[in-house]
Amino acid sequence: MSFRYTKPFARLIDEFSKMPGIGPKTAQRLAFYILRNSSENVANLAKVILEAKEKVKHCSICGNITDQEICEICQNVNRDKSILCVVERVRDLIAIENTGEYKGLYHVLEGAISPLDGVEPENLKINSLLERLKVEKVKEIILATNPNIEGEVTASYITKLIEPLNIKVTHIAYGVPIGGSLEFADEVTLTQALMGRQEVK
Amino acid sequence: MSFRYTKPFARLIDEFSKMPGIGPKTAQRLAFYILRNSSENVANLAKVILEAKEKVKHCSICGNITDQEICEICQNVNRDKSILCVVERVRDLIAIENTGEYKGLYHVLEGAISPLDGVEPENLKINSLLERLKVEKVKEIILATNPNIEGEVTASYITKLIEPLNIKVTHIAYGVPIGGSLEFADEVTLTQALMGRQEVK
Repeated sequence: MSFRYTKPFARLIDEFSKMPGIGPKTAQRLAFYILRNSSENVANLAKVILEAKEKVKHCSICGNITDQEICEICQNVNRDKSILCVVERVRDLIAIENTGEYKGLYHVLEGAISPLDGVEPENLKINSLLERLKVEKVKEIILATNPNIEGEVTASYITKLIEPLNIKVTHIAYGVPIGGSLEFADEVTLTQALMGRQEVK
Repeated sequence: MSFRYTKPFARLIDEFSKMPGIGPKTAQRLAFYILRNSSENVANLAKVILEAKEKVKHCSICGNITDQEICEICQNVNRDKSILCVVERVRDLIAIENTGEYKGLYHVLEGAISPLDGVEPENLKINSLLERLKVEKVKEIILATNPNIEGEVTASYITKLIEPLNIKVTHIAYGVPIGGSLEFADEVTLTQALMGRQEVK
């Protein structure tokens, strides 16, 4: 017979266990955190969860998260509206924003083509990308899908669709990660790094 | 300039980051989980958090978690009331319960003596342990504090207090963990395993 948690506590562990990356041990630790925290803090946590769910939406233009109709990036007059970076997820957009090096706009696909997982092109925001290209004066599209099979398939699918529009299409560079060691780079990455070699000026 | 999250989302990441073992990356992942989950599920999560905080208390006898005044273990007439296992935390009690091998009662200290962290004996449930020993007919006390300095100090502090009461005091065995390998056991554990060697019968 294993330990029977008191019901409200068992339910809490259960809810935490549903969260991504949270195993039973971590769920138990989080549940104990709730118990020993002040009632005010716990009430605030519950409030913040509900508020985020209620107020945070996706930007109607690019798909970024926002609490308005259009996100801060799309609204920003200082961003270069002639470049569009296509990413799979908002978290990829965040990663690129955090470099501080990109000044263009984004388009979030909300996934990558993966027939095995039931994700077909029509399940992604590819149509809305094409609609944007009709209206916005885009000169370059940077494909920044993930460097895996699904991301590659999605990138080449989009490339073919955009070809007739005469817009420059680029993809982010593949190569050995900075700070890494050649010794530990896998063959595919190393092959890409060789193929993408650039002249030293 | 790094990515500025929309405020309700930033607050959510902030709250999650306060949880033990949750770094900024995991907090972001959990926040996205909230966003993509249904409103019903999120409302339920918030409800379960508030309910657990409201309803789950500590057993007035042993300190175990319960939604009643006295926990299921203390209420259980089939438990051996002559043995008391002293643990630092409820999670230790749960670990021992999960073995299914212990049929006595518990006493949760709510920590271990650690002057550096400001935890003195009077901050622990040591007095209430002595009070229990006056009332309950306890024949054996098993010390199951953690096998580290704080746990050892706490165990010997309690041992000295109990000595005059003529109650048998034991501690759980220290040794090499089952499934482990001698090669990788540290010297202290191995020394303890040697000292605690038992005759093969």
